[in-house]
Amino acid sequence: MKLLHEKIRRDGVVKPGNILKVDSFLNHQLDVMFLDKMSEEFYRRFKDENITKILTIEASGIAIASLTGLHFQVPVVFAKKSKSINLDGDMYVTKVESFTHKNVNNVIVAKKFLNARDRVLILDDFLATGNALIGLISLVEGAGAAVAGIGIAIEKGFQDGGKRIREAGYRLESLAIIDSMNGETGEITFR
Amino acid sequence: MKLLHEKIRRDGVVKPGNILKVDSFLNHQLDVMFLDKMSEEFYRRFKDENITKILTIEASGIAIASLTGLHFQVPVVFAKKSKSINLDGDMYVTKVESFTHKNVNNVIVAKKFLNARDRVLILDDFLATGNALIGLISLVEGAGAAVAGIGIAIEKGFQDGGKRIREAGYRLESLAIIDSMNGETGEITFR
Repeated sequence: MKLLHEKIRRDGVVKPGNILKVDSFLNHQLDVMFLDKMSEEFYRRFKDENITKILTIEASGIAIASLTGLHFQVPVVFAKKSKSINLDGDMYVTKVESFTHKNVNNVIVAKKFLNARDRVLILDDFLATGNALIGLISLVEGAGAAVAGIGIAIEKGFQDGGKRIREAGYRLESLAIIDSMNGETGEITFR
Repeated sequence: MKLLHEKIRRDGVVKPGNILKVDSFLNHQLDVMFLDKMSEEFYRRFKDENITKILTIEASGIAIASLTGLHFQVPVVFAKKSKSINLDGDMYVTKVESFTHKNVNNVIVAKKFLNARDRVLILDDFLATGNALIGLISLVEGAGAAVAGIGIAIEKGFQDGGKRIREAGYRLESLAIIDSMNGETGEITFR
């Protein structure tokens, strides 16, 4: 998505260690007018998939999932991260290791919000190792529901998450795929 | 907001200990079509306040803040909760005690996203003791910005947060104020 490439070049900050900071529009401050354009693009790409529900993970996926939910006119569910599991009602649970935070979280969704008739669009802001996404896929499939598509705002194409998930046969669409970043010059190469 | 009263009566679940579960539409599954109606109502109430930015707190405030941001056409910032402070750039920090989770979090906003010219609309899904809200107010005022208004989806009117904040002179508007709940019959009385 050309608009997103331009936005990342203009507002993103590349830091050493292959870190891309997009906190001015995507995951701390939210440029909701721009996020809504990205949501429209997700709608355009997945509108023929008979999506019944959108699933994301707290916290920074919630904004784009909510805006996209409005385009699809379907409910959004956000999976919660929890150190401990509070078994208040039945939960689907999976464990996700965070590369950024170097910890392991339980990721949970109440069973009543995913069912076997659902065709789920999974959305998230970033894809790198794919651990969070694989966790979300396992929650959906644990419910007997179908992963009808996966939409990502920014994929770090030099990490292997995207490759693993595409090779497993999922329809994964990233609005921007970064092939390389230069922490010294700030240069970004998109696929 | 009559529609919200009806929604809470229909989809909310009252549990012993003055707990109201609205996770089917507000804070786990998100009924984004309904949340957008609530966002329109926030816009109607605060549209003459020259709002330049919306501030909320992760995670469950993000959906309604994002949808409301679209109506106002202003950026949204969500404050982050953190056990430890990662001093990556300058942050405004405040401490917030959680009544629900019985713990204390640092609540942080990057300084670059709040400035002295901002007129901030603070939004959140719930108001009970007011601790989170008082934290957000202190972040805004710490930046020299103005709290132009405070919008809450559901206020527990039998706890003292709303009273404290109104008495301090803030314009606080809650779309639903619950005066009492009966954990045995499920009955809810709105103000």
